[in-house]
Amino acid sequence: MGRSDVMNVASLRQQLVTEDVGEDIFALAAKIYPICRSITGDGVRETLGEIGRHIALVVHEVPTGTAVFDWTIPREWNIRDAYIKNERGEKIVDFARSNLHVMSYSVPVRRRISLDELKKHIHTLPDQPELIPYRTSYYEENWAFCMAHRQFEGLQDEIYEVLIDSSLTDGHLTYGEYLHKGETDDEVLFSAHVCHPSLANDNCSGVALLTYLAKRMAGLRTRYSYRFLFAPGTIGAITWLARNENSTRRIKHGLVLSMVGDGGGPTYKKSRRGNATIDRALIHALRHSGLTPTILDFFPYGYDERQYCSPGFNLPVGLFQRSRFGAIPQYHTSADNLDFIRSDHLSKSYRLIADTIDVIEGEAVYCNTMPKCEPQLGKRGLYGAIGGDKDVAAASMAMLWLLNLSDGAHSLLDIAERANLPFAMVHSIAQLLKEKGLLTKVHSHPD
Amino acid sequence: MGRSDVMNVASLRQQLVTEDVGEDIFALAAKIYPICRSITGDGVRETLGEIGRHIALVVHEVPTGTAVFDWTIPREWNIRDAYIKNERGEKIVDFARSNLHVMSYSVPVRRRISLDELKKHIHTLPDQPELIPYRTSYYEENWAFCMAHRQFEGLQDEIYEVLIDSSLTDGHLTYGEYLHKGETDDEVLFSAHVCHPSLANDNCSGVALLTYLAKRMAGLRTRYSYRFLFAPGTIGAITWLARNENSTRRIKHGLVLSMVGDGGGPTYKKSRRGNATIDRALIHALRHSGLTPTILDFFPYGYDERQYCSPGFNLPVGLFQRSRFGAIPQYHTSADNLDFIRSDHLSKSYRLIADTIDVIEGEAVYCNTMPKCEPQLGKRGLYGAIGGDKDVAAASMAMLWLLNLSDGAHSLLDIAERANLPFAMVHSIAQLLKEKGLLTKVHSHPD
Amino acid sequence: MGRSDVMNVASLRQQLVTEDVGEDIFALAAKIYPICRSITGDGVRETLGEIGRHIALVVHEVPTGTAVFDWTIPREWNIRDAYIKNERGEKIVDFARSNLHVMSYSVPVRRRISLDELKKHIHTLPDQPELIPYRTSYYEENWAFCMAHRQFEGLQDEIYEVLIDSSLTDGHLTYGEYLHKGETDDEVLFSAHVCHPSLANDNCSGVALLTYLAKRMAGLRTRYSYRFLFAPGTIGAITWLARNENSTRRIKHGLVLSMVGDGGGPTYKKSRRGNATIDRALIHALRHSGLTPTILDFFPYGYDERQYCSPGFNLPVGLFQRSRFGAIPQYHTSADNLDFIRSDHLSKSYRLIADTIDVIEGEAVYCNTMPKCEPQLGKRGLYGAIGGDKDVAAASMAMLWLLNLSDGAHSLLDIAERANLPFAMVHSIAQLLKEKGLLTKVHSHPD
Repeated sequence: MGRSDVMNVASLRQQLVTEDVGEDIFALAAKIYPICRSITGDGVRETLGEIGRHIALVVHEVPTGTAVFDWTIPREWNIRDAYIKNERGEKIVDFARSNLHVMSYSVPVRRRISLDELKKHIHTLPDQPELIPYRTSYYEENWAFCMAHRQFEGLQDEIYEVLIDSSLTDGHLTYGEYLHKGETDDEVLFSAHVCHPSLANDNCSGVALLTYLAKRMAGLRTRYSYRFLFAPGTIGAITWLARNENSTRRIKHGLVLSMVGDGGGPTYKKSRRGNATIDRALIHALRHSGLTPTILDFFPYGYDERQYCSPGFNLPVGLFQRSRFGAIPQYHTSADNLDFIRSDHLSKSYRLIADTIDVIEGEAVYCNTMPKCEPQLGKRGLYGAIGGDKDVAAASMAMLWLLNLSDGAHSLLDIAERANLPFAMVHSIAQLLKEKGLLTKVHSHPD
Repeated sequence: MGRSDVMNVASLRQQLVTEDVGEDIFALAAKIYPICRSITGDGVRETLGEIGRHIALVVHEVPTGTAVFDWTIPREWNIRDAYIKNERGEKIVDFARSNLHVMSYSVPVRRRISLDELKKHIHTLPDQPELIPYRTSYYEENWAFCMAHRQFEGLQDEIYEVLIDSSLTDGHLTYGEYLHKGETDDEVLFSAHVCHPSLANDNCSGVALLTYLAKRMAGLRTRYSYRFLFAPGTIGAITWLARNENSTRRIKHGLVLSMVGDGGGPTYKKSRRGNATIDRALIHALRHSGLTPTILDFFPYGYDERQYCSPGFNLPVGLFQRSRFGAIPQYHTSADNLDFIRSDHLSKSYRLIADTIDVIEGEAVYCNTMPKCEPQLGKRGLYGAIGGDKDVAAASMAMLWLLNLSDGAHSLLDIAERANLPFAMVHSIAQLLKEKGLLTKVHSHPD
Repeated sequence: MGRSDVMNVASLRQQLVTEDVGEDIFALAAKIYPICRSITGDGVRETLGEIGRHIALVVHEVPTGTAVFDWTIPREWNIRDAYIKNERGEKIVDFARSNLHVMSYSVPVRRRISLDELKKHIHTLPDQPELIPYRTSYYEENWAFCMAHRQFEGLQDEIYEVLIDSSLTDGHLTYGEYLHKGETDDEVLFSAHVCHPSLANDNCSGVALLTYLAKRMAGLRTRYSYRFLFAPGTIGAITWLARNENSTRRIKHGLVLSMVGDGGGPTYKKSRRGNATIDRALIHALRHSGLTPTILDFFPYGYDERQYCSPGFNLPVGLFQRSRFGAIPQYHTSADNLDFIRSDHLSKSYRLIADTIDVIEGEAVYCNTMPKCEPQLGKRGLYGAIGGDKDVAAASMAMLWLLNLSDGAHSLLDIAERANLPFAMVHSIAQLLKEKGLLTKVHSHPD
């Protein structure tokens, strides 16, 4: 069996990946980076509008006051302008320069106040004096500015004019979803939060990656249906779960994506189940990536996997990131900007997700049709050419492992893990052995 | 939620511990240290008498000749005096100076004998020439003296007068027990051996610690009933088991204590079951103690856990020690004296047992009443104040873990282990969440 | 209990081992080393003839063309002579000097050819230029010589006369088997391949070791029946399995042996089951051997365990070797000669197999007849003499472990593993406790 035989089936993985996917994702992330998002408001709508230029996104609006499990959709927040002026009329802090300058959900204010009073409404990072922090106060009415500590220290004792031209009114929470229909109704859920303002990695990177994944998938045949959810963190995921409670049973695998554009990690936090196929598939992809991944057991703090993995749902949903949230100095600061993410990192993250999809789609159980002793490979042209071709040697081992373990009790992923071979190779050799009549497919593996 | 909320439930653990408990235990150990105990006789009675000054101890006398499983209660041994005199009439070995000088259960003797003859009846420790060994011969009639090897080497070749004024007659085996009645008949067994003569750590320390634990518990409400057994090693435990065979089924957790006053270890030897709640509870306490404990799997050699864990009983009883028996030079020698134990070590040992009791008493299964998505903690005042208070952060994590894992399949100890948080914190946060209606108690955990 | 008590039962292991077994095995290996074996032909018959001088071997002949599962018995290959002559008539390569010079199953040839043409039919080892490689072409008609690369490089550009006086004709595949009848029909299978020409370790060593094991066993009473199979690799094992398909269910334990005469390893590759008694027994023997064994999980590449462990059979058969195949420079070269194997290594390998048989034969479940508390060992004379005799201490621990774990759920091997004591000691102490009435045998352990 030559290399060409092994590779002659165009894998889903190969169809999902394009040459320029990293640059495409970066460009979209850069496009949505300046938008001032929050958990509600026009910033979310504008972001979903950009996504909708690539995929047939369905946008949902849920009115303020709607009960979603233990929560209630809050009032909608929008902001037009904000600044702090000194006595000379200079804008020393200007929302137009960075939307991080205003604490998200700040109530409107227009006042002249003393430095002492102003200081009660300012957040800084003393340990990172050049950076603006990202702060929110969704459920407690308040207002505040965020600024570099260095600037804060230099503030004169004078009277300041502060303006936050925001509104907090009955309105809607907005989220978008896109469903790629596969051969079955079993679903794979991909979820990214769209509530952070100008933070490039967290989570313009995740939003953009999923948009291109959905866009690429649109033209392909898949076994599973794929649902892409772009929603505000926490309240958005809770809203979606509340409105789709009964159909969550269709979700067989799922991933939350955030911070996929930096060069750290990659990091995978397992689903609460801990050994779901999505956990095994992503860990398998990571182990064969040539990178040095960090695998974390589930813990109930983080992104929207908190909701998907709450005990009443316990969905098989993990969290994929590059650097781990909270573990890097750029996290939730103005340093999480477009310089922090790179197209090559985005491309690598995208490929890891494509590898994972390849495992999920290909996972199946086969049975050896000649289980007593080894079948004679030579007479079927399945023996490797003489010589030390490493791929041929690995393909031969894949063949022997498949024949030995295809007893109805081991799936392709089981075999790939046991043989320590890439799933893609095990899967393509399985197709070859099936063509030769040595394997028969027992069942797909819906989990 | 501030720190005060977390700590406002006075835990059983706190009620068990007193400021001076280490000194109290040391004083009692020192009081009983000089008494010449053996597996029978007045030394045991006198020791139980001292214990009885603190707790309402019930003393049992079992006649010589009584069958207890494969064993028979031996004759009772008592001793009044013993010495070796040289030709000048000097007592070169004197029982009055150390009761270790006479092998326990030595038969009476009064003779004049040559050095050669005498040497056949002397035990020394050539590798520890300054120390007197501790020796017994319960089931083979014999007599012997124990002495420092240094002194033994200097013995002159002359005629010696040896006296052992002992008696070995029909009598009784004596043991004491104290039962603290809890809300249920399910029992926790604490057992210490009272058969060793002047050995401070082994086991005056254990006897004294258990006496103070029982004394302190007397005033408290507990879920379990607590049985404290003070009995001679091996034959005493066997006697108690033979006389209480049917009620052993009440024992849900148990510990043998010995050598709890030195600064080594701590050491925990698991019950034969290996993963009983007592094993997990004590290991949990040790892991959060700041010490570097040694955890041993069960093995059928040691103290009375040998009997409790014999296959016909297989009770969930482990062994708690500081240094491991046999692993220290002082073991079974005159160096195991009052200088070897210290009140601060005794206090630490006591607190570890109190921590363990706290786990056993508090262990329960709760269910999240709002299992679908996370409940909104903020509107219930359960969110931590802004800032880096480490205890608040841990308490918040405890809250999230409790909500996530309280699905009926995980107990508080399961959650504490998984979250790597002290049981006391998990337990008190569970009470808080129960008050807020977010958790409901499914059942206590009787094991 | 003194040492003599422990050792007074002459173990099967002791009966299997003789003083000179290493030299005996070496001598037989040396005797069969020069024979030119292949997967068929007179070399196999001659080898089986030598084995038959020691044991009552039954030889089977299976005709060319017979179907055995997916395979067909090939034509029989024999060879009388082969050489390459240069223009001066000198035999520069001569089959008479080493049968490795001819690729096994080379078709007949007698030609005068150019150097260029000759080179297409020569195998060498450029990285080991002094050694002749071992090559075969069973299922593809071809002819070739094998030679040292050093010599190959010095070949002159001239006309060579090549002769391979072989025949490839309808005939038979030949294998031999010997059955030692035990008390039951449950079988232990030992299998060695007899298809390699002059390779001393691979596998004259294995063939000779099994011959002496069978010879020694002939006089002994055993619980199991022992089947010794000497067959060509792959096709021989497949043939045996095809002809004995229904009786394979009798095989309770099995080992493939090859390369047992060098000083490497020892190496054990587990059966596909992974935790069969044969796996545990051999690993136990290795762990108490004083050597530093390598334990490998099953993988579907290697010797005839590939066939025994194919999924349709999944027999509990492992592979025992010293050095791991393929992992040493001598593998499949002329350096695998009689200098590479030594009688002391052969003796050690033999003893390890004898230890393993001892475990399999002795494995049983006993029950403590006095499971409540410990029985009184002293009154039965079972207590060790005072003093530090290490064997007595180990024997005492064996006694305590046996009494503690003999609850019907633990076999002797379970206990030996848990106690970390040699099976032979645990087994002999079990016999002693049985004599004393403290243990009763519940059942043998057929697996």
